[in-house]
Amino acid sequence: MTKKIVYFWIQITTAMPLLSLKAIEMPASPIRKLVPYAEAAKKSGKTVYHLNIGQPDIDTPQTALDAIHNLDHRVLEYSHSAGFESYRIALAKNYQVEGINVNAEDIIVTTGGSEALIFGLMSTCNPGDEVIIPEPFYANYNGFAVMAGLKVVPVTAHIENGFALPPIDAIEKKITQKTKAIIICNPGNPTGYLYTQEELEQLKEIVQKHDLYLFADEVYREFCYDGAKPFSTMNLQGIEQNVVMIDSVSKRYSMCGARIGALISKNKDLMQAALKFGQARLSPPTVEQIAAEAALQTPKRYFDEVVAEYVLRRNIMVEGLNNIPGVFCPKPNGAFYCVAKLPVENAAHFCQWLLEEFSFENQTVMMAPADGFYATQGAGLNEVRIAYVLKKEHLKAAIKCIAVALEEYIGTTN
Amino acid sequence: MTKKIVYFWIQITTAMPLLSLKAIEMPASPIRKLVPYAEAAKKSGKTVYHLNIGQPDIDTPQTALDAIHNLDHRVLEYSHSAGFESYRIALAKNYQVEGINVNAEDIIVTTGGSEALIFGLMSTCNPGDEVIIPEPFYANYNGFAVMAGLKVVPVTAHIENGFALPPIDAIEKKITQKTKAIIICNPGNPTGYLYTQEELEQLKEIVQKHDLYLFADEVYREFCYDGAKPFSTMNLQGIEQNVVMIDSVSKRYSMCGARIGALISKNKDLMQAALKFGQARLSPPTVEQIAAEAALQTPKRYFDEVVAEYVLRRNIMVEGLNNIPGVFCPKPNGAFYCVAKLPVENAAHFCQWLLEEFSFENQTVMMAPADGFYATQGAGLNEVRIAYVLKKEHLKAAIKCIAVALEEYIGTTN
Repeated sequence: MTKKIVYFWIQITTAMPLLSLKAIEMPASPIRKLVPYAEAAKKSGKTVYHLNIGQPDIDTPQTALDAIHNLDHRVLEYSHSAGFESYRIALAKNYQVEGINVNAEDIIVTTGGSEALIFGLMSTCNPGDEVIIPEPFYANYNGFAVMAGLKVVPVTAHIENGFALPPIDAIEKKITQKTKAIIICNPGNPTGYLYTQEELEQLKEIVQKHDLYLFADEVYREFCYDGAKPFSTMNLQGIEQNVVMIDSVSKRYSMCGARIGALISKNKDLMQAALKFGQARLSPPTVEQIAAEAALQTPKRYFDEVVAEYVLRRNIMVEGLNNIPGVFCPKPNGAFYCVAKLPVENAAHFCQWLLEEFSFENQTVMMAPADGFYATQGAGLNEVRIAYVLKKEHLKAAIKCIAVALEEYIGTTN
Repeated sequence: MTKKIVYFWIQITTAMPLLSLKAIEMPASPIRKLVPYAEAAKKSGKTVYHLNIGQPDIDTPQTALDAIHNLDHRVLEYSHSAGFESYRIALAKNYQVEGINVNAEDIIVTTGGSEALIFGLMSTCNPGDEVIIPEPFYANYNGFAVMAGLKVVPVTAHIENGFALPPIDAIEKKITQKTKAIIICNPGNPTGYLYTQEELEQLKEIVQKHDLYLFADEVYREFCYDGAKPFSTMNLQGIEQNVVMIDSVSKRYSMCGARIGALISKNKDLMQAALKFGQARLSPPTVEQIAAEAALQTPKRYFDEVVAEYVLRRNIMVEGLNNIPGVFCPKPNGAFYCVAKLPVENAAHFCQWLLEEFSFENQTVMMAPADGFYATQGAGLNEVRIAYVLKKEHLKAAIKCIAVALEEYIGTTN
């Protein structure tokens, strides 16, 4: 409401052509405010350990890079609006090998997982409709909701139980006449929490009962640890028409810049509608689709090595954090993020202070204040999201920084 | 309104979770209905000359392909959400060389021109706002308008004067309290018409007077013929805050599949808002941005050759069409499309008949019925859009087909 007031105030006081209400409502990135401080810290000569972004340092599989180097096109033509047929067929086969119930005709290749969610939301939800999302959640869901004119209704998950699915009746209580969908991310960004099949079956019941869509962002599927197996929403029996899976090559093959994702559903009407959105934007990128298709040939040992590396990093990070007095960090078994509670009142202020004021052996750390991942005002104020995407030596140095910093910060502010 | 009735009818009669109103309103491609007929014709062994799509057969510049082959990244990382800084700087320099007033900070690199227009419309227009577009226009503008919840208000241009800008008072008459922007495509798809500086100055006056945004899709800028020089809206003095230019490498470098475009404006508030949309989707594709940056090194002789080739093709096409009794096709001096009036009542039916029933020496032609490029119901019914993107021998064969077909069709249907 306040944003609307600001908007109309601008409307009255400016002589310029106005921007839209969406331009005002569109959220900036949760770390945007910190970026200038990180840049200043680096300019001053400090080493900044970036625990704030989910950009892995893992090599892209050689098979994908080779496909790019060996591209033999004379003309970089459009692909089909749903993506190259050969890629869709190969991708479906890949899902089937993983035991996930997907056929080629259930797939529209999109420009990143982002576009898949935008097409999915626009195809199913009217402006003013509500989408329920367990929080903390991937902050850009807010942006996609604004684009589609939707209201995000959060249900708070809690750090105490590692951000497990909130009690199903807490979710059901949020369902209104306007509720159209539930969005989950599994394994989760920012929590790293992997939903159990039981939790997903609970969700299935209310999805079925209230005839909702269930959007499942499963882009971290390969990153499951300690023997945990991901259960795909595509395998939930009886709600095949309600499930929309979002996928992407970004994290799986460390190809974030490729912008190749997929919208996946058994609901043919939805897929037909989504394809119209796809036709309007013509096609996803050609070269990187070819690379994504080649990436499907990545040998299993690549993932074994990557997963082993992330387990190592997670263990260093989570144990290191929990060894700092007053810090609590549940041990997630998926993705490459964790959320930690810090012994501070305002983690955003602490994160800024780390960049602006703090230095230990000329090093400091950039983290993402977790409040940006909550839609509930005031939630997560003393939490940070950490992406453990750095080499172990750097993670250890970063943990040392955080420990020294907290001691100093608490001494200063108390 | 009818669509809304259909929507609510579906709402009542289905037990499935509903799709959105946008899913219903989203237009399908104007050639969608013809595709199965074209496929059937090809399966039956007929050669089909595709005059229906703007996919050039021109080679992508070698410098762009080399950049792809020589990519030396180990990790395909995200770029900046506004695109690689080096690309934005090089692109701005390129505009300046062409005498177009653009600096690096006026540019956000987008995933194709499509995304640029979506970000631009979403940043400036509220759902329910109106955008005025001279028709016939690029059909996908309808799709972007649906995505942003906007009403397209057409102003009809006429084939008799080559689809020149409609009289400015006809445009001004369409302006209401809800009008937020005018969208033009210059040189035009589907008309090939290149607006004169005088026409653009007329537009400037009403843009200024009514404080509107002026979106100018200038992706065909390099394709101007017979000595005609394009005048960029970025050079219109005094409405710098109102102008938003849409650009793309798709046609310029025959890199349609690269999906690299740009949103360009001097309006800093707008660019800041658009960047938030850009941040939500993270970044445009990395590899193809690198190719697009390399494409800026394309030697001038590439364009000289391409333009000479298109002039040759246009001349063959337009003269060939005008030599057919009853056909009228104005000679455009931009882009690589033309719109022709045929001596038939329903060009859509004729186009389908060409694919389904007609054959001349086992060949036929696929064209785009032009009614799909008009928003006014019933306009352009006897017109087709032709993309002259084939080699001259194929164009000549296609013209022969059309001539024979029209004679036969008129004999059959009259």
